[in-house]
Amino acid sequence: MAAPRPYGQRRADALAILTAPAADAWVATASSEGTAYLVPLSIGWTGDSIVLVTLRRSPTARNLAAAPGVRLGLGGTRDVVMVDGEVVTEADLPNAPAPLLDAFAAQSGWDPRQDSNAADYQVFEVRPVQLQAWREANELRGRTLLRDSAWVDDPEP
Amino acid sequence: MAAPRPYGQRRADALAILTAPAADAWVATASSEGTAYLVPLSIGWTGDSIVLVTLRRSPTARNLAAAPGVRLGLGGTRDVVMVDGEVVTEADLPNAPAPLLDAFAAQSGWDPRQDSNAADYQVFEVRPVQLQAWREANELRGRTLLRDSAWVDDPEP
Repeated sequence: MAAPRPYGQRRADALAILTAPAADAWVATASSEGTAYLVPLSIGWTGDSIVLVTLRRSPTARNLAAAPGVRLGLGGTRDVVMVDGEVVTEADLPNAPAPLLDAFAAQSGWDPRQDSNAADYQVFEVRPVQLQAWREANELRGRTLLRDSAWVDDPEP
Repeated sequence: MAAPRPYGQRRADALAILTAPAADAWVATASSEGTAYLVPLSIGWTGDSIVLVTLRRSPTARNLAAAPGVRLGLGGTRDVVMVDGEVVTEADLPNAPAPLLDAFAAQSGWDPRQDSNAADYQVFEVRPVQLQAWREANELRGRTLLRDSAWVDDPEP
């Protein structure tokens, strides 16, 4: 087992995963009845938020319209970036802020504004409330890199 | 984009992912208040069920104790096996059926019975109710390989 990465390295590695071209997230939401939904979606990272674009009739869009909480897993199952986030902006695609869609299109390689059914999409800006990153069991300690929407202080500056 | 795989190939590929040594799943559950939880966990495949082992105090175990529904994502985000399942057996580790733990240990390489805190673990047998597999957009059609707990008939036998 590799030695646990220091805070700065974990944060740099987590940002590399969030900003990677064609990055996907496993997006977990819940219905108001308490049924979990999960689906992989492309993301865009704006610098402080994650942009998701999905069909308005999809379970993810319906769940997020009813309650803003979402949990996203990125990276591999043994190189995890786990984000608990809250929807801070929601709009149908024609009314979504251009910077969100620009960030999404640049990173994902897919601009939903060019899609023939563009009007069917909903855009969500998700602000991370907590972000954790770990690889193996020895990295569970110190895995919380962002808490209460702010990066934690480096414990070993 | 590759041509869509026929049913038989998708089913074989999905089983290869479910039975791979050290296979992990992204496990999505929901609390009764409608908060989604997500975590990667090792799995064991018994031939018709997925075995999960996790700490009894974890959100996943608490969610599954309250409601049996779970959605699991395996494979890559662009080579997805998505399982909607129901817990059919739940037991604390000392009382869990040996065949479940044998399947789990053989596949994961980790036998929780050998763990110093074995008594803290809970074991779940998850029976797939629906299983879908897809790679790209052209595989969304025909992605449901198992429905109502039974493999669907090959549409092109």
